[in-house]
Amino acid sequence: MSIIKFRESVYLRAAASVAGKEEMSGPLGEYFDVTCDDGDRFGMDTWEKSEGEMQRLAVEECFRKAGVRAEDTDAVIAGDLQNQCTASSGGLTGFGLPFVGVYGACSTAAESMALASVLCSTGSVTRCAAVTSSHNCAAERQFRLPLEYGGQRPPTAQWTVTGSAAFLIDSAEAGEGGAIRVTEVMFGRMVDSGITDANNMGAAMAPAAADTLLRYFGDGGADASLIVTGDLGKEGTSILRELTAAEGIDIAENHTDCGMMVYDIDGQDKHCGGSGCACSGIVMAADIIPNLRRGVLGSVIFVGTGALMSPTSVAQGCSIAGVAHLVRLEADGV
Amino acid sequence: MSIIKFRESVYLRAAASVAGKEEMSGPLGEYFDVTCDDGDRFGMDTWEKSEGEMQRLAVEECFRKAGVRAEDTDAVIAGDLQNQCTASSGGLTGFGLPFVGVYGACSTAAESMALASVLCSTGSVTRCAAVTSSHNCAAERQFRLPLEYGGQRPPTAQWTVTGSAAFLIDSAEAGEGGAIRVTEVMFGRMVDSGITDANNMGAAMAPAAADTLLRYFGDGGADASLIVTGDLGKEGTSILRELTAAEGIDIAENHTDCGMMVYDIDGQDKHCGGSGCACSGIVMAADIIPNLRRGVLGSVIFVGTGALMSPTSVAQGCSIAGVAHLVRLEADGV
Repeated sequence: MSIIKFRESVYLRAAASVAGKEEMSGPLGEYFDVTCDDGDRFGMDTWEKSEGEMQRLAVEECFRKAGVRAEDTDAVIAGDLQNQCTASSGGLTGFGLPFVGVYGACSTAAESMALASVLCSTGSVTRCAAVTSSHNCAAERQFRLPLEYGGQRPPTAQWTVTGSAAFLIDSAEAGEGGAIRVTEVMFGRMVDSGITDANNMGAAMAPAAADTLLRYFGDGGADASLIVTGDLGKEGTSILRELTAAEGIDIAENHTDCGMMVYDIDGQDKHCGGSGCACSGIVMAADIIPNLRRGVLGSVIFVGTGALMSPTSVAQGCSIAGVAHLVRLEADGV
Repeated sequence: MSIIKFRESVYLRAAASVAGKEEMSGPLGEYFDVTCDDGDRFGMDTWEKSEGEMQRLAVEECFRKAGVRAEDTDAVIAGDLQNQCTASSGGLTGFGLPFVGVYGACSTAAESMALASVLCSTGSVTRCAAVTSSHNCAAERQFRLPLEYGGQRPPTAQWTVTGSAAFLIDSAEAGEGGAIRVTEVMFGRMVDSGITDANNMGAAMAPAAADTLLRYFGDGGADASLIVTGDLGKEGTSILRELTAAEGIDIAENHTDCGMMVYDIDGQDKHCGGSGCACSGIVMAADIIPNLRRGVLGSVIFVGTGALMSPTSVAQGCSIAGVAHLVRLEADGV
């Protein structure tokens, strides 16, 4: 498979973001839809439950924005970084919707959006939500050490975003102006470049992003106003640009990366930038999609990137494969 | 969304199974395609890597049976029980195929088969593999305790199957006689009945299986030669039959469960039966699908069931939601 083009129109009807306090302090802070004032707990007594609650809030806000009820939605596709993806199951059970669980590490926003679009293109599904989340405190203690240890982070480390994003994909006409269409999706190949350092995710993911972009353009995919990767951070971004330039494709002019947008990297001391499933999710929902809606951007190639590893696989010396899924969004009528 | 019916034909072209020694000693032992003689290690030095290797072997055997090469396949959809699904990424990276990671716990065989069928129905995808696995030794130490502890198992416990299954879904005509079509799929809702005992998965999953079957028949789904759930075990099976009978649908006559088929439950001391992603996968690949191919069965409703929990969520007192995805298979021309 290369590019999946849809025979029928598929719309991105609404997007919603939930964000934590570090994210609210960043350059996109004012654009997030939902936040909390209890230190990223969102009213829960464990970080893991807080993450599930963020997913619930994101979906609720997404339905509110779209003006639809849960029961008017056919399915929800979701995944996260917690072992066995329990933020998704814990947060979303209450909606009573058919549930398609996915695991794509930090590429989950793109993967779930792509699959939701595929489902909506079948003709049997009218409307499908795509959801993801990450919580810094849950991720740190699961993948590295509990925050209380105060462990040092190397310069290549990225900061797991606390947040959740929900997208509503719809096969029906999206109503008056400002509609956004999902026109193409492409699932990425796993690319293993031999990286074994779990604190250098950018280097593990960049070759996968390059592979997906080069396959896309090689298969006739058109350029766009903006190529958005998520979330390579500083290190991964420079590797991606080198890898694509070496193949004669210079993306530097119209490329940005969600891991570099979500924080004031130097001011907030975030080393190589943001990461986590929520990183590209909330940047897309709070910044890129509104800019498509307003016509500031005509088209966007969104490449969600993920690093496929667990603490166990890293401890056993396995190298970390990256994967990158592509979703093309077009502002209708621009 | 209720039932997704395919506008174009989608075929189940081939299925392959890999099994461990306990499974080889069970009633289906002679029907599995690939096994090993090094104590379920499959040549690897950790149980986690053994599980990945089983996935690789299952896909290789599936391609061999179908007479296709990896490069003739458009994508692979896979998931497993390991944290961050690393059996799938570790085992399948080498095929160089676009990769869609899923998490559905023990429903993964059905979920990946359903998604592969949806992809093949888009017209952009010709051929897609659906893969899953579990390894008893990897699962025990991750979810409960390392085997060396010799922990006691309660009567409701199920035994995680060591194995892997791969299915090749194909949109092209599958050639001469004996073809099997995927005619419908339906994704299940998460159903939380308040079960908090991680050693009673059957009770956590049975209400989800009942929900999916009742929705299917309620939405006009037809009965079939056989309804196969996977993997409720003894306890879950009796709950499922009670729940459906209470709604006026008696499935006992044409229902079986993969968790009760894979072992000689009493003879092999398996308490409530088999479980794990591989359980329904290898029973489908080694028994149900060959019987469809031979015309012994005309049609099958396959309902893969999963329990959505992690050791963390259970330790935090969260109840365990179940989910059950449905795939309808029809023997062509029967």
